[in-house]
Amino acid sequence: MRVGILGGGQLGRMLALAGYPLGITCEVLDPAPDACAGQVAPHRCAPFDDLHALAAFADGKRCITYEFENVPPQAAEWLAMRLPVRPTPRALAIFQDRLTEREFLRSLGIPVPAFAPIEPSEPERALQQVGLPAIIKTRRFGYDGKGQWRIDTEEQYLRIVRQQSQPLLMEAFVAFETELSIIGVRSLQGEVACYPLIENIHGGGILRYSFAPARVDTSRLQPVAERFIATLFDVLDYVGVLTIELFLVGGRLLVNEVAPRVHNSGHWTIEGAETSQFENHLRAILGWPLGSTTPRGYCLMANLIGELPDPQSVLTIPNAHLHLYGKQPHAGRKLGHITLRHDTPEERMQGFEQLQAVVPLQG
Amino acid sequence: MRVGILGGGQLGRMLALAGYPLGITCEVLDPAPDACAGQVAPHRCAPFDDLHALAAFADGKRCITYEFENVPPQAAEWLAMRLPVRPTPRALAIFQDRLTEREFLRSLGIPVPAFAPIEPSEPERALQQVGLPAIIKTRRFGYDGKGQWRIDTEEQYLRIVRQQSQPLLMEAFVAFETELSIIGVRSLQGEVACYPLIENIHGGGILRYSFAPARVDTSRLQPVAERFIATLFDVLDYVGVLTIELFLVGGRLLVNEVAPRVHNSGHWTIEGAETSQFENHLRAILGWPLGSTTPRGYCLMANLIGELPDPQSVLTIPNAHLHLYGKQPHAGRKLGHITLRHDTPEERMQGFEQLQAVVPLQG
Repeated sequence: MRVGILGGGQLGRMLALAGYPLGITCEVLDPAPDACAGQVAPHRCAPFDDLHALAAFADGKRCITYEFENVPPQAAEWLAMRLPVRPTPRALAIFQDRLTEREFLRSLGIPVPAFAPIEPSEPERALQQVGLPAIIKTRRFGYDGKGQWRIDTEEQYLRIVRQQSQPLLMEAFVAFETELSIIGVRSLQGEVACYPLIENIHGGGILRYSFAPARVDTSRLQPVAERFIATLFDVLDYVGVLTIELFLVGGRLLVNEVAPRVHNSGHWTIEGAETSQFENHLRAILGWPLGSTTPRGYCLMANLIGELPDPQSVLTIPNAHLHLYGKQPHAGRKLGHITLRHDTPEERMQGFEQLQAVVPLQG
Repeated sequence: MRVGILGGGQLGRMLALAGYPLGITCEVLDPAPDACAGQVAPHRCAPFDDLHALAAFADGKRCITYEFENVPPQAAEWLAMRLPVRPTPRALAIFQDRLTEREFLRSLGIPVPAFAPIEPSEPERALQQVGLPAIIKTRRFGYDGKGQWRIDTEEQYLRIVRQQSQPLLMEAFVAFETELSIIGVRSLQGEVACYPLIENIHGGGILRYSFAPARVDTSRLQPVAERFIATLFDVLDYVGVLTIELFLVGGRLLVNEVAPRVHNSGHWTIEGAETSQFENHLRAILGWPLGSTTPRGYCLMANLIGELPDPQSVLTIPNAHLHLYGKQPHAGRKLGHITLRHDTPEERMQGFEQLQAVVPLQG
């Protein structure tokens, strides 16, 4: 059973590793010769718009999926004429453009922060619509805090807008209490399962830590977040894993971003849930029954960013599970993660302290 | 970080898959071109006694280990002059010969069933020493019930002995109440950890099901089994995972076999223990700290032998985890396993019933 993955980063790598026990061999397509999934799975090194490579990639595959949202939708659509592409290429087209994404969410009645497109000829209009403080974001290719600027004054706003040549979006700055995310999965038959809400801590725009389940009380929030997921699943006839990043503000959830894929904030599911997000994504896109998303204990996931700690120092921490991606260290690059799995929230907080000695919060 | 594994079967495959998240790439050496570990890890296809291949295999490796005990000890010893081989090649030499194994265990005061070597010129002596009923076993290359004959009469005994040209051993037939196994691991620094006693059900000489922890009360047996492990670890200055198969007879433990490696009865540790036997073996042989061997809930592991059920029917069973080895179906061949992980012994027994509909006991 062969599955093709568009993109060969760590998400593709972990999908491939989840596939082998199920008898699934994943092949990744990625233009980077050193794409880290290529260390554990067959790797076709070619640009996403190389139709000859796409045709060869499709050959012998049961279906195609993607592991990052900046895959050209044209590539996914071209493949979808030949074999199933799951999730639908439409999700790529919608969620890789922050403006399209927000307009789509608003049209579905899913609450988002106030936003407006910035018209270069008339930048004041967005400013008036959204107000200050705000965030300017590029419409495309933003990730890990890249392509975002916090704006407190009109002067700052106009300077950034004049500097940038690419399409921009203005969004109200949200003084959130907590950042959360929810990961859901829908099978080909329409079965839906969600993992519990995850609490995320960012630093410098990059996810640093995830607590799963969240430390804050989410009993009233979980059904709300699951309704957002269900709405997106229904309207897109979605198959596979989908992630929603959320702000908690005044007891209310606002959607920050949607990722039509497995997500960094779900890495804890490898040890901390009955079935990992990676396995469930593969089961979903192959038309197989989903696995239980029930959490097993209390997890903390920490990203390893820019540099790697000594593996031995990590593995002395009780219940620490190390995941390295085989990438060359580079400032700001996600090189791996650690998951601590404990039976109680108290042990998890103790583990958090032990971990901070090894992985500094701003490391 | 590169590790070499002598042998490329499913145990090598699962070691390789456990290695990737830790930044370890395992390469397997196996003379079979279709060795199933080769689907997930680099595979050097060569006989174990090909010194040129062994030298190339050793190149760039941090250490060498083995995944089955019928590797020629000479190959392991030749490698051990060049780089660390863990566990010690001495363990191979001892445990691949059932006579040497039993003599070694007896010399350490570890209880074994009555046994005697069969001298072809004087077969009656073993018969007198051991008595009937008994089992005749080949001294070497027995596995999964192969090379074993149950003997009830002197006539049967003499017929088997005359038919066989290879060295034989006679062993008293043990009317055991339960078959158990224990898996322990010792680090390079001498740290020891054991998994809980596992209860095993065989059919046709092949392991069919493992219950972990065991269904029977093992509170008095666990320390006894751990002492056997500790004795072997000490006397062999052992590093890595070691497995002891045990008979429970009249409340007493007798050792049936020792395997100087990860073991089929430990596959449940992938989902059912904080750290799997595969990860702990790699951590041990690399001189890293061990991970917790604490069980998470109640597991049942079922081997998939000879033929494969439909993956979808397996995955409809709650908390079923499917592991396929990528091998061609063949009568009596281990093709994969299923682990059920539950929070209570009652749910596990319910799962056992659900599973039997998919995997018949004598399937």
